[in-house]
Amino acid sequence: MRILNTKQDNFYSEFNKLVHRSDTDMSSVTPVVLNIINEVKTSKDKALFEHISKFDKWQPKEALDIKISTQQMQEAYESLTSELKDALNLAFERIKAYHELSKPKSWIKDDGIGNKLGAKYTPVDRAGLYIPGGKAAYPSSLLMNAIPAIVAGVDEIVVCTPAVNSEVNSLLLAAMHLCGIKNAFKVGGASAVAAMAYGTNTIPKVDVITGPGNIYVATAKKLVYGDVNIDMIAGPSEIGVIADDTANPRHIAIDLLSQAEHDEIASSFLLTPSENFAKQVHLHIQNELENLSRKNIASQSIQNKGAIVICQNLDECFLLMNDLAVEHLELAVKNAIDYEDKVKHAGAIFFGHYTPEAIGDYLAGPNHTLPTGGSAKFYSPLGVENFMKKSSIIMMDKFGFSKIAKECMALARAEGLGAHEMSVKIRFDELDNKA
Amino acid sequence: MRILNTKQDNFYSEFNKLVHRSDTDMSSVTPVVLNIINEVKTSKDKALFEHISKFDKWQPKEALDIKISTQQMQEAYESLTSELKDALNLAFERIKAYHELSKPKSWIKDDGIGNKLGAKYTPVDRAGLYIPGGKAAYPSSLLMNAIPAIVAGVDEIVVCTPAVNSEVNSLLLAAMHLCGIKNAFKVGGASAVAAMAYGTNTIPKVDVITGPGNIYVATAKKLVYGDVNIDMIAGPSEIGVIADDTANPRHIAIDLLSQAEHDEIASSFLLTPSENFAKQVHLHIQNELENLSRKNIASQSIQNKGAIVICQNLDECFLLMNDLAVEHLELAVKNAIDYEDKVKHAGAIFFGHYTPEAIGDYLAGPNHTLPTGGSAKFYSPLGVENFMKKSSIIMMDKFGFSKIAKECMALARAEGLGAHEMSVKIRFDELDNKA
Repeated sequence: MRILNTKQDNFYSEFNKLVHRSDTDMSSVTPVVLNIINEVKTSKDKALFEHISKFDKWQPKEALDIKISTQQMQEAYESLTSELKDALNLAFERIKAYHELSKPKSWIKDDGIGNKLGAKYTPVDRAGLYIPGGKAAYPSSLLMNAIPAIVAGVDEIVVCTPAVNSEVNSLLLAAMHLCGIKNAFKVGGASAVAAMAYGTNTIPKVDVITGPGNIYVATAKKLVYGDVNIDMIAGPSEIGVIADDTANPRHIAIDLLSQAEHDEIASSFLLTPSENFAKQVHLHIQNELENLSRKNIASQSIQNKGAIVICQNLDECFLLMNDLAVEHLELAVKNAIDYEDKVKHAGAIFFGHYTPEAIGDYLAGPNHTLPTGGSAKFYSPLGVENFMKKSSIIMMDKFGFSKIAKECMALARAEGLGAHEMSVKIRFDELDNKA
Repeated sequence: MRILNTKQDNFYSEFNKLVHRSDTDMSSVTPVVLNIINEVKTSKDKALFEHISKFDKWQPKEALDIKISTQQMQEAYESLTSELKDALNLAFERIKAYHELSKPKSWIKDDGIGNKLGAKYTPVDRAGLYIPGGKAAYPSSLLMNAIPAIVAGVDEIVVCTPAVNSEVNSLLLAAMHLCGIKNAFKVGGASAVAAMAYGTNTIPKVDVITGPGNIYVATAKKLVYGDVNIDMIAGPSEIGVIADDTANPRHIAIDLLSQAEHDEIASSFLLTPSENFAKQVHLHIQNELENLSRKNIASQSIQNKGAIVICQNLDECFLLMNDLAVEHLELAVKNAIDYEDKVKHAGAIFFGHYTPEAIGDYLAGPNHTLPTGGSAKFYSPLGVENFMKKSSIIMMDKFGFSKIAKECMALARAEGLGAHEMSVKIRFDELDNKA
């Protein structure tokens, strides 16, 4: 794992590479993805079945073959150990409770002259959740995408997940049962995104597509954006830790590794004002790596994408961390909450010595679908609002309308929009006459 | 203007064309736009100057040439008539007041076992507003895009607007002064979007790009999406009116025309249960068209894109209108507010007989940047939230952490993520020992 020091000569050129860690180039896969999307648009289920045969190595014959039955979900749930059943249920309840607190609320207020103004929030009709299969088939992904849609009040939730050899991870099936999913399909990749964006004979067209995926899925989401809404375009996972001497270096080493074990291209950063602490963490990482079940993945990630940065003080740590705008930010410092104001950009902030990032992955409550690669500068965590939209509410009262009509006419006239002016004038004149 | 009746045989095939009114095909302009973006990415200001020379017919020589001076803005403002000054100021104040009410608020709550969870909202560092020039250079567009950014607390607001022959509309300049814009540039089209997305020598890179534009601007926004955030991809403006016999047919005719005068490809729809009312509106439209300064535009729009639909009852009006999911929806019916629950999809809803759509364009308060072409099914009006993002807040307490640690470990183990489990276990074991 690299150790950088902000005092070294070439520091900023090295650090700049970390800031621009995610300049992923979609252009190389765009033609392939565009082709897949067009095939699904044109040939619907037929194209899906061909793509499944090619990528997932089994051959669906009819619509029913790609549909996951609710009975299968229920059986998977019932065969869970009670420990896992309890854990999934606790996660479900905590995630639901948090998201209910953050549900947008409709409002309407008087403007002081009798006009009513407000906003009305409504759920989208249909939401499509993309859940990866294979090595990254996580039941937690299903919970984190389905629960905000449930809390939003979405009528119809559609799930797509790739099923190599037609097999779906049984924990994922159990999580589907817990979330009451009725429409789940064994389709993955860009095909699944296209199917949900445009509809096929079997898969209904949705209004919003959310969920993680590889570069093909991310590119497909970008290409269908505008025809449907999407949550964000996300890349490999990442963690940034700011720690001082009050943190336990072994804890921090394991926290960094918990991100590294996700993916060879995941990033883990430690920023600390203590050179001694940096060295201890570095040592612990070497030791702990040996015991990891996913040692190969984690060591590649740590070596190629990880970095420890020794800063001059905590202020410098925060300054640099805001530039990195990481997905997960741990503040393992004394009185962590006092530093809240110093964080400008981060997907989720984990405060103090007893908030390891993993607790947020599963059951702290907030969503684990978070902006990556620096996009926390402009994207937010997935939330209930991704499954709702608002309509502005405007209701003028005769008096209130009359009080602002002249100014409205002046502006319309200045913009040269005669019918706009007339639509106000005709009402204003009538009211004036009656006054 | 077409008159359809839901009882006629081919109604749904005709109506379906209205529902799919916006299947705009970006693919024909994508190569051109991609090229423009790549030129700006590579050659920065040099590319901008070339594009300006080509599209806006003047030749900037240096950075200062494309910057709009604050002095010019101030002079434009001071030379306004007092009527227009008052109107602009009233609009500014009302739009600001509404947006302040809708500003997202940070929150933090206890989960009942001592852990603190919440969300922290922060403004983006820099926002880029695209404001069209030429025939659609509207000061109201500047107010509607700048004010939510101001209310969000954005530090640096960048404005780009095309200036044919280097000239900028003086009302637009005045509105810039009113909004305190410091960084405005005479650049338009896809070049401007690329410049704000990636930065040039003169124009700073921003985090979010908002604002209306033609198909080149819309395509550029879609292509840079992910590298920055954008508000939405918007098409031609549109209005839908549901009216019963209590509405004034001349009022409604003018309201429909006020949308039609925007653009030859703007859409205006009237849905009514009254055949008689439909006929009256139709007559008034013919009459009023004659008096319009923008008669040519409005008549093309009304003829090619407009439609009156006679429904069997009000319920059917709402059913069909939800399918259309229009940008502006006027409910010109008796006791309009009673129908609020029947509206599922609309950008903005104008209730009652004294709320012409034009009042919302200028100074009702809510934003006039709204989803078009049916995208109200998943997009929201522009708002303060487009210029902010949230970070989740998680702070575990020793006791609260211990209460949920075992379930977290079980889930991490089930997903095969050993370091995740370890990061929780190592803390849990220590706390347990001390207990």
